Amino acid sequence: MKHYLQFKDLTADEYAYLFERADFIKRKFKAVEKYQPFADPDRTLAMIFEKASTRTRVSFEAGMYQMGGSVVHLTTGDSQLGRSEPIEDTARVISRMVDLVMIRTFEQSKIERFAAHSRVPVINGLTNEFHPCQILADLFTFLEYRGRRADGTLDPQALRGITVAWVGDGNNMANTWLQAAQILGFRVHISTPRGYEVDPAVAGVPRGDFWRVFDDPMEACRGADLVTTDVWTSMGYEAENEARKKAFAAWCVTPAMMAVAKPQALFMHCLPAHRGEEVAAEVIDGPQSVVWDEAENRMHVQKALMEYLLLGRVA
Amino acid sequence: MKHYLQFKDLTADEYAYLFERADFIKRKFKAVEKYQPFADPDRTLAMIFEKASTRTRVSFEAGMYQMGGSVVHLTTGDSQLGRSEPIEDTARVISRMVDLVMIRTFEQSKIERFAAHSRVPVINGLTNEFHPCQILADLFTFLEYRGRRADGTLDPQALRGITVAWVGDGNNMANTWLQAAQILGFRVHISTPRGYEVDPAVAGVPRGDFWRVFDDPMEACRGADLVTTDVWTSMGYEAENEARKKAFAAWCVTPAMMAVAKPQALFMHCLPAHRGEEVAAEVIDGPQSVVWDEAENRMHVQKALMEYLLLGRVA
Amino acid sequence: MKHYLQFKDLTADEYAYLFERADFIKRKFKAVEKYQPFADPDRTLAMIFEKASTRTRVSFEAGMYQMGGSVVHLTTGDSQLGRSEPIEDTARVISRMVDLVMIRTFEQSKIERFAAHSRVPVINGLTNEFHPCQILADLFTFLEYRGRRADGTLDPQALRGITVAWVGDGNNMANTWLQAAQILGFRVHISTPRGYEVDPAVAGVPRGDFWRVFDDPMEACRGADLVTTDVWTSMGYEAENEARKKAFAAWCVTPAMMAVAKPQALFMHCLPAHRGEEVAAEVIDGPQSVVWDEAENRMHVQKALMEYLLLGRVA
Repeated sequence: MKHYLQFKDLTADEYAYLFERADFIKRKFKAVEKYQPFADPDRTLAMIFEKASTRTRVSFEAGMYQMGGSVVHLTTGDSQLGRSEPIEDTARVISRMVDLVMIRTFEQSKIERFAAHSRVPVINGLTNEFHPCQILADLFTFLEYRGRRADGTLDPQALRGITVAWVGDGNNMANTWLQAAQILGFRVHISTPRGYEVDPAVAGVPRGDFWRVFDDPMEACRGADLVTTDVWTSMGYEAENEARKKAFAAWCVTPAMMAVAKPQALFMHCLPAHRGEEVAAEVIDGPQSVVWDEAENRMHVQKALMEYLLLGRVA
Repeated sequence: MKHYLQFKDLTADEYAYLFERADFIKRKFKAVEKYQPFADPDRTLAMIFEKASTRTRVSFEAGMYQMGGSVVHLTTGDSQLGRSEPIEDTARVISRMVDLVMIRTFEQSKIERFAAHSRVPVINGLTNEFHPCQILADLFTFLEYRGRRADGTLDPQALRGITVAWVGDGNNMANTWLQAAQILGFRVHISTPRGYEVDPAVAGVPRGDFWRVFDDPMEACRGADLVTTDVWTSMGYEAENEARKKAFAAWCVTPAMMAVAKPQALFMHCLPAHRGEEVAAEVIDGPQSVVWDEAENRMHVQKALMEYLLLGRVA
Repeated sequence: MKHYLQFKDLTADEYAYLFERADFIKRKFKAVEKYQPFADPDRTLAMIFEKASTRTRVSFEAGMYQMGGSVVHLTTGDSQLGRSEPIEDTARVISRMVDLVMIRTFEQSKIERFAAHSRVPVINGLTNEFHPCQILADLFTFLEYRGRRADGTLDPQALRGITVAWVGDGNNMANTWLQAAQILGFRVHISTPRGYEVDPAVAGVPRGDFWRVFDDPMEACRGADLVTTDVWTSMGYEAENEARKKAFAAWCVTPAMMAVAKPQALFMHCLPAHRGEEVAAEVIDGPQSVVWDEAENRMHVQKALMEYLLLGRVA
């Protein structure tokens, strides 16, 4: 049994498979064709949210239903996971009744403890440290635009050697980009304000050529194949909002930054976006932005991921 | 692609079709027969609630499941739609993942903006200005009781020329009655307390013979085929509760009002009801009241509506 | 039409049938085989929660989906059932749209009133007075361990004459054990702190040999086939927490208590558990504890119960 708690939980070969499956599953959806591998018998996903969500809710829940399965959506309300009973007990009980668990929580350690006592696969739907499902969607989106072979299939090798520029907070997204770069063989340029640096110890990646830090976000974007950012204040850090607005003022992705990236560079953002803060309206609403496809692709890659965790390789 | 944001979004001909379909779908339900046009492939409804609901929740959600589809139920919690990101962005993202969206919100403008950026049909599940699904249910209920042909089918023409008396608040229900009367060719008698008048500019209907305002609710009920009302204080107006109780004191639907309506007049109420306030217990629990059928019919007409918006005319 | 509001709503013969069905349904689940008696047509369960829940949520909801049905999950939020409209009206409306209703509420009288006006079966998912679904799961779990015939089938007669020791609060679980003992022919030993005694008038059972009260929990456990307890402070009694901690200090199920029970005695707990309070870690995590099977079995017995209430005897 496999869990998906960090990006490094899967190999490059497994990711190549997932990208191809996501492409297949997305085509089924777009063609309005039935594809329900979770219908016989019914497979059930439990979703546990300690942080609110729209995109993660809809993408997992609609995805599961469309594949013929079902969803139990649990919010922890005022009490956090581990408050009324040890996380280990919750994991033991819930994993007896369902086939798969997705958790959005705070500390990565919570989801790791849950997984250690779960009988069924556990998926990280966002923690303070990592957001692997989002990067999975981002990479798939990149391949859709820049990694299609002449026969229309995706070429996962198209990710090798590309440069991804991360502009902004050294957060869970940045950590996950580092893991992804190491596994899939691309480079990450990171530029964060002082005090918001990425911590490679969290990502668990070595120093090395595949990632570099830049003081100037402009330099991080130079020659990039993909420029991406996130809100200045992620959920759970609202108290720091004003301080962050000052610190991050120069870390807005502008047309000037896009201009120094490669001409065919794409712009991504995991949303919600605050135009005029972390990204200029001209960028996110401009021709290089693929943020709506990126958002939709959360659903398709997660369908492929759930299929793989539950049924293994089916093609 | 059609949305259903106001009653006037559909034509008399389309309503005639919907009443017949609702009748067919209701018969299937009552016969405990499978009817699942949304199963292959799975069709998903996203429901967005900014105001709490029981009837709307259950009628849409159970209805969707019974037709073979699935539902993602989103509440906006403390943050309103449009707070964490522009409504347009939310519309773009959600409408990429589901097949249909139902929204219960405050300002009509919100749902209009959402629909303008949605790739899939949007249904108004109640706004401050309109409640078209409720009137659809009310009219279907009227036809069930007073518009059945000898062969058992419904005759939508039976609505032409009838008189509907609206007693109480000049609210979203009243506005929707005005639109329905114009489209389907019946008359509305409206009696509201001073300060709570209906505003025809909101409904967008012209002055004309088809609707009249009465100071005395008794006069509004005289000769009516249908008498209907609503709570004095709709959701969102709780702060005005005491002032409203005084202003509305004479706008309680009493047996005396029903006595001046036609002998075969029906009583309807969209519920929840406060006996002794907007309606006397003898009326809502009396023989002319069809409020339980009316409530159940929300589900059946909404099934027909969702089928039409998703699949077009199927019969 | 049958409701399941108290344990005494079914007969010993019906329980024998339910245990056998739960065994069959559990085998299907464990074999990952489709069993969907609620799929054609879709059967819908409405769940109404006035108290939060994880186990009840997941067990009913996943169970319903796995049987091919669907679920509408309603929370009452800040307003209680019966606040915005009379419970009777809510019952009338909801029961028009769904096939089955499960309610977790406070006063037993609420669920009784709801059921009296419901067109569909109502299940007690926990009230202040009773928790019949939990005892159903506990008894099924006992039979799995101590009541299997040579041919592998369950023998409901294995419950006759056993002794169940209840250590702790004279609460809804204790009341339900009393009803179960009377109906199924076993004995209950109850030991509660002073001030927290069980009230046989609530359970509606006569004085008699089948239940005895003990001041000393050790004496209650002596010779027992099953020792079981619950948290000291059930939901809704949090204000009494400190007083209860003092009063209940001696009502912790310890290895010493288990040592005076029968050698093959089982330990059960409806969870969540507070190790070191109502049960020692060595007991709940020890070899006689079957609490995880007990938790999982909530789902299997409730599936059997829902099948019986909706479809009657199918085997």
